[in-house]
Amino acid sequence: MVDHPDVRLRVRYQLTCAAGEDPFAKARDIAVEQTVELPEGCFSEHVEELVVGKVEALEERGDARWEVVISYGLVVIGDELPQFLNVLFGNISLKAGVRLTGIELPPALLSTFAGPRFGIDGMRELCGVGERRALLCTALKPVGLSAEQLAELAFRFALGGIDIIKDDHGLANQRPAPFKERVERCQEAVTKANGRTGAASLYFPNATGPISGFEERLEFVRAAGCKGVLLSPLLMGFDSVRYVAALSGLAVLAHPALAGSFFHDDAGIAPEVLLGQIFRLMGSDGVIYPNAGGRFSFTEIVCEAINAKLRERLEPLRRSFPVPAGGIDAGKISKWVERYGVDTIFLVGGSLYAQSDLEKASRELLEKVSRI
Amino acid sequence: MVDHPDVRLRVRYQLTCAAGEDPFAKARDIAVEQTVELPEGCFSEHVEELVVGKVEALEERGDARWEVVISYGLVVIGDELPQFLNVLFGNISLKAGVRLTGIELPPALLSTFAGPRFGIDGMRELCGVGERRALLCTALKPVGLSAEQLAELAFRFALGGIDIIKDDHGLANQRPAPFKERVERCQEAVTKANGRTGAASLYFPNATGPISGFEERLEFVRAAGCKGVLLSPLLMGFDSVRYVAALSGLAVLAHPALAGSFFHDDAGIAPEVLLGQIFRLMGSDGVIYPNAGGRFSFTEIVCEAINAKLRERLEPLRRSFPVPAGGIDAGKISKWVERYGVDTIFLVGGSLYAQSDLEKASRELLEKVSRI
Repeated sequence: MVDHPDVRLRVRYQLTCAAGEDPFAKARDIAVEQTVELPEGCFSEHVEELVVGKVEALEERGDARWEVVISYGLVVIGDELPQFLNVLFGNISLKAGVRLTGIELPPALLSTFAGPRFGIDGMRELCGVGERRALLCTALKPVGLSAEQLAELAFRFALGGIDIIKDDHGLANQRPAPFKERVERCQEAVTKANGRTGAASLYFPNATGPISGFEERLEFVRAAGCKGVLLSPLLMGFDSVRYVAALSGLAVLAHPALAGSFFHDDAGIAPEVLLGQIFRLMGSDGVIYPNAGGRFSFTEIVCEAINAKLRERLEPLRRSFPVPAGGIDAGKISKWVERYGVDTIFLVGGSLYAQSDLEKASRELLEKVSRI
Repeated sequence: MVDHPDVRLRVRYQLTCAAGEDPFAKARDIAVEQTVELPEGCFSEHVEELVVGKVEALEERGDARWEVVISYGLVVIGDELPQFLNVLFGNISLKAGVRLTGIELPPALLSTFAGPRFGIDGMRELCGVGERRALLCTALKPVGLSAEQLAELAFRFALGGIDIIKDDHGLANQRPAPFKERVERCQEAVTKANGRTGAASLYFPNATGPISGFEERLEFVRAAGCKGVLLSPLLMGFDSVRYVAALSGLAVLAHPALAGSFFHDDAGIAPEVLLGQIFRLMGSDGVIYPNAGGRFSFTEIVCEAINAKLRERLEPLRRSFPVPAGGIDAGKISKWVERYGVDTIFLVGGSLYAQSDLEKASRELLEKVSRI
């Protein structure tokens, strides 16, 4: 990577100060904690200059809150994703009143971490949807069904024209539908349906699992004819997405399982940073998030912020698809397409399952998004 | 794994109800969300019986808080660590007012995930400290020093008798001290010091990094003569620890970088569950956590709870060392040994660095813990 001393990673944090707490000291503490992690006076001037973060700006925001910008030299990060995350928020996650609210990604980091392999344009090509319409995704579930039963669901969804049929993120390697059997059956079913419809519906199995055997698992998925996988980065590790994007030729839909732990007003990482910036940088072609108005608690403003970060022009990083989910009502899909635009994959699950004829329900959903 | 229908994983959550929110409905929602993730009525009785979590108990705790126990059939978990974490807290991390506060681990899961390879007894053997004294650990830092400079520090610490000398968790593969050069130099330095002292100080390099090359990295560490590694599970993935414990023959010290995002009063995962139960189950021989009274915000009660979970008798799972850290004052070490007991590894960093003679400072610290 380009490790020029003038190129720095600029990171924005929101500080919430306790009574009597000095925001300047709190800002300097972050700059030290995230880099040298030593008491003042225990490191040389050379290390101060080369390594310690620099407080670039500090502004009061009211309500005991301050916004600070700290810049880090790229030499501290090196070329590995885990250490990048560590510099952003590793130790200070353990301190009160610090929230990561923004990252300015310098070009050197964009080429180091490379991002999505397919992105919005590549995913449209994979799905054979050149036209300007939103894409549709659904999930195979629940755990407890056999591979054959899941494959039958996949077949119905594909006949109905759903673009991406993914495993539920809770389908791992359980007894009722072991991974390999499930992947083969479901892909066969989708291929068969594509033969009838002439469309190119895709099946994305959940490849989240142990590190041991990951490469073989991806090889198996590819050999079965799948073009992409579902991964839960918080369950398996952020680097698992980078690994797939960089090395496997497969597309990645990233799932936010466990990520909710990061979302707090005065702590953690802002959703648009974690799901919009970090998930994209590590290589997600699409990022699933809980849509406003569904079963979870994001507001529409947060959802729009995630969408904006995923689609932001940031050459040479490809743009990622937002994948709102978590209780999207098939009956209200038109409203959401108008709100979020066509460069969106809508993940509709329960609302299709609640209808008796999955094929018909899927087709009606497709017609709705195609009309907009 | 034993997948007997009567054996279930029992999990405790604290619910914080918003005005008008029904705790019974909230409890049932967790049981459904974490398993079938479908609207009521969209799954069969067979799936309800086999898969859906069961609300076993629900008690009011005052202040709009309730404690619920939900049990999950092991068939939902299978035999993979990421899915175990997903069942515990995957999707519901994204819902407001749910906090994971306890796990009752059934024997079947203890044999599936196996836990630490060395544990407290094995680590004592590795360090050659059979006597009943607390162990000492320190960290090589900061980023920015050359491999040679870090090795010189390691040499001084080992001469002074520190049991485990680990890399700072921010030492990855940066230019000033690339991974391989650092590992070889530091291990050489510690071996040389051991030759003089007759002790068996250990050097644990930070093996946190990309998934690609992980196996080779561990092989390199072993070939260099190291007996263990440092890993940050939240940066690299929980399964990285299990992988090392199960397959590499190396011991693991786990670092809590990024883990602070989980610790909130009404959300996230209780520290003793994440650091005490989950970090142990996945295979950490020692778990580093921010001690009370240091730079971070844990109370002593929380620290004692973590200690208790790490050391709890739970055959055949080995017991893990608590490794309190984050600003332990060398001058107050006796107090902490008396408080936490000898089955503790004390990680003292800055407070040694603040003294000019590292060897002497280390020796004095060792004398203090040996007297207790």
